[in-house]
Amino acid sequence: MDQTTPVPPNCLAGIKVLDLTQFEAGTTCTEALAWMGADVVKIENPDGGEAGRRGVADPYYFMIYNANKRSVTVDLKSERGLALVKEMAKKADVFTENFGPGTIEKLGLGYDVISALNPRIIYAQVKGFGEGSPYEKGLCFDPIAQAVGGAMSITGERDRPPQKPGPTIGDTGTGMLLAFSILAALYQRNTTGKGRQLQAAMQDSVMHYSRGMFIRQAQTKKAAQRQPGSGNNIPSGIFPCKPGGPNDYVYMLTSRANPQHWPRLLKLIGREDLIGDPRYDTPAARLEREAEVNEMVSEWTRQRSKEEATALISGAGVPAGAVFDSMELTNEESFWKRGILQTMHHGDWQMPMTTWPVRFDGAPAPLKPAPLLGEHTTEALGEWLGLSPEDVAKLHKDGVV
Amino acid sequence: MDQTTPVPPNCLAGIKVLDLTQFEAGTTCTEALAWMGADVVKIENPDGGEAGRRGVADPYYFMIYNANKRSVTVDLKSERGLALVKEMAKKADVFTENFGPGTIEKLGLGYDVISALNPRIIYAQVKGFGEGSPYEKGLCFDPIAQAVGGAMSITGERDRPPQKPGPTIGDTGTGMLLAFSILAALYQRNTTGKGRQLQAAMQDSVMHYSRGMFIRQAQTKKAAQRQPGSGNNIPSGIFPCKPGGPNDYVYMLTSRANPQHWPRLLKLIGREDLIGDPRYDTPAARLEREAEVNEMVSEWTRQRSKEEATALISGAGVPAGAVFDSMELTNEESFWKRGILQTMHHGDWQMPMTTWPVRFDGAPAPLKPAPLLGEHTTEALGEWLGLSPEDVAKLHKDGVV
Repeated sequence: MDQTTPVPPNCLAGIKVLDLTQFEAGTTCTEALAWMGADVVKIENPDGGEAGRRGVADPYYFMIYNANKRSVTVDLKSERGLALVKEMAKKADVFTENFGPGTIEKLGLGYDVISALNPRIIYAQVKGFGEGSPYEKGLCFDPIAQAVGGAMSITGERDRPPQKPGPTIGDTGTGMLLAFSILAALYQRNTTGKGRQLQAAMQDSVMHYSRGMFIRQAQTKKAAQRQPGSGNNIPSGIFPCKPGGPNDYVYMLTSRANPQHWPRLLKLIGREDLIGDPRYDTPAARLEREAEVNEMVSEWTRQRSKEEATALISGAGVPAGAVFDSMELTNEESFWKRGILQTMHHGDWQMPMTTWPVRFDGAPAPLKPAPLLGEHTTEALGEWLGLSPEDVAKLHKDGVV
Repeated sequence: MDQTTPVPPNCLAGIKVLDLTQFEAGTTCTEALAWMGADVVKIENPDGGEAGRRGVADPYYFMIYNANKRSVTVDLKSERGLALVKEMAKKADVFTENFGPGTIEKLGLGYDVISALNPRIIYAQVKGFGEGSPYEKGLCFDPIAQAVGGAMSITGERDRPPQKPGPTIGDTGTGMLLAFSILAALYQRNTTGKGRQLQAAMQDSVMHYSRGMFIRQAQTKKAAQRQPGSGNNIPSGIFPCKPGGPNDYVYMLTSRANPQHWPRLLKLIGREDLIGDPRYDTPAARLEREAEVNEMVSEWTRQRSKEEATALISGAGVPAGAVFDSMELTNEESFWKRGILQTMHHGDWQMPMTTWPVRFDGAPAPLKPAPLLGEHTTEALGEWLGLSPEDVAKLHKDGVV
């Protein structure tokens, strides 16, 4: 395969986003808008920038969640800085923030203020808990949202403690739902000419990604349990492979809905003698002999690498996939050729990172660096507000930007 | 708090979605569009409907992923049925599908066909693996996407096997990214008048939600490991509470970035004597005594319920959240008052389900039932194509719809 050349999707060209987000839940929302071509301008504290830049030895965290944006420093605690951001709000299509409860209002940039300045603006917020929740004043971080949103209760081994899902459902998960909602509101504005106020709560968002638990609860009338495999489909789940490293496993799934999976698997592992054997032939029978069935399959998988096992099992017509770790994915050449992995450069730093996973007309989006602190202060204040470089230099000298 | 009255966001009023999706990855995408007010018409096989309705004893799975849509039955294998769907494609703004690789082309509804009929259409597909991936011909299901996309490798206990995250990142996660991309393309169409072809791969989408692993990899130059707690922040993670049920845990996080967390926690658990003690005073020192520190905290949490522990720990200024299960969330009255949980009715069935988690102008969206099979065949074919009830009755008699 040839290298796929990245092409900007350019869908949101001309859309201005005034971005006061920090850490991950808010920054991933505006990063998604930036992938689509919006002009996302991060407003950052001149003293160290947004919280995600600070208190860490390296910029990797900041880099991965702030691709394709511009950075403008403004001291929001200064009167002139605040006035400047209000002028920007008059020009913006979207305003976003994810400070702790009450903070944006204390800064003087609450919904009432901003929507009065610009009735066309989409004002979008991430909070940990929704208004009206008993926890609405509480701080939230990704793992806390995953605890209180039900995700942990359905993750982990049976008969062992709940676990935190590694993917950041509370942060990136929430960011994606808010980004979608912002575009819906922007689309509507073409007809109505009016802005809207949007609020996403991290707890509610985690429940959205976890709502399969309500299916199992409706079926059993009990709280959904942890199901490491695929429900009552036996065998399903992860099986150990050689050489036995921490991620040397293959996931496979013999589905109750497809009675061919089990005999296909038996044939593959050299146990044709058991095809049709009533001790194993129905999903219910295998469920009763779960440990025995799993061991039978494991005996075969342990003798193969996960790549080999995956190829053989899928080749036999049974769904399977290897458990890949971050390094294996990084070393998989096809992600680079397809433009799904690209190199993020940021000053002297660099790292591989995933690009927007949806292709437009076959092409991935090109990656632009996450901005250095204040990198675009002069440029963006010029473009948005018509300030001259001299104006900006004066503001800088006065400690406003 | 008063009950919050649901109000339709109505952002996509007038947008027609021709929906050929099945199971979860595709159906959640079009469900999101339906929450925003698009007219989503599911095209279903008259013989049992889409795959998510079949082979299961109850309709809960179908109900939760198909809210607010309409259902039209069409036999795509019949010439007249296929022609009917092509007529609908001429009227549609969005076309969506997530069949296995090659299926939609075999049906005669590939991108080339549909875009020639309607150059303004947004043609959106979910595939398991991207074009150009070594696995591009492979079938995919949520847990397989979570295995091959890296999510399992970063989920689970240290020194134990990888685990499948309970939230369906591979399915709903992919659906959300595609839904966002569809709206970006629709927005762009207002200017260009042209449609676009969108493809989301489940593997790539899982990597997007898991991309925090590339941060840890960049820092350590090794594959990201499973981190049940919050990195090197000790104590962090889940701690056992009484009465010791499967989800009686509290998640807490003492952050390296906030040196006040640890002394606050010591004070709370009655160990002020250790404040300032160099054996525990720095994150590095606590990391060396991790097991001892965790046990000290667990001894305190074990004597309290998770609700009590959460209230006390957050009250002391340390981030914390209880591990809630699906039943506890269902029984939490504020979700019902806030309209985040609503009751889905579907024929004689009903169940609690989560509604769209982003509020528009303070209101949640109202829930309409997932359609019964073919419930809207007459109505929707009338509205989209101007067919009379008699026309539709004739098509039905001929086995076309």
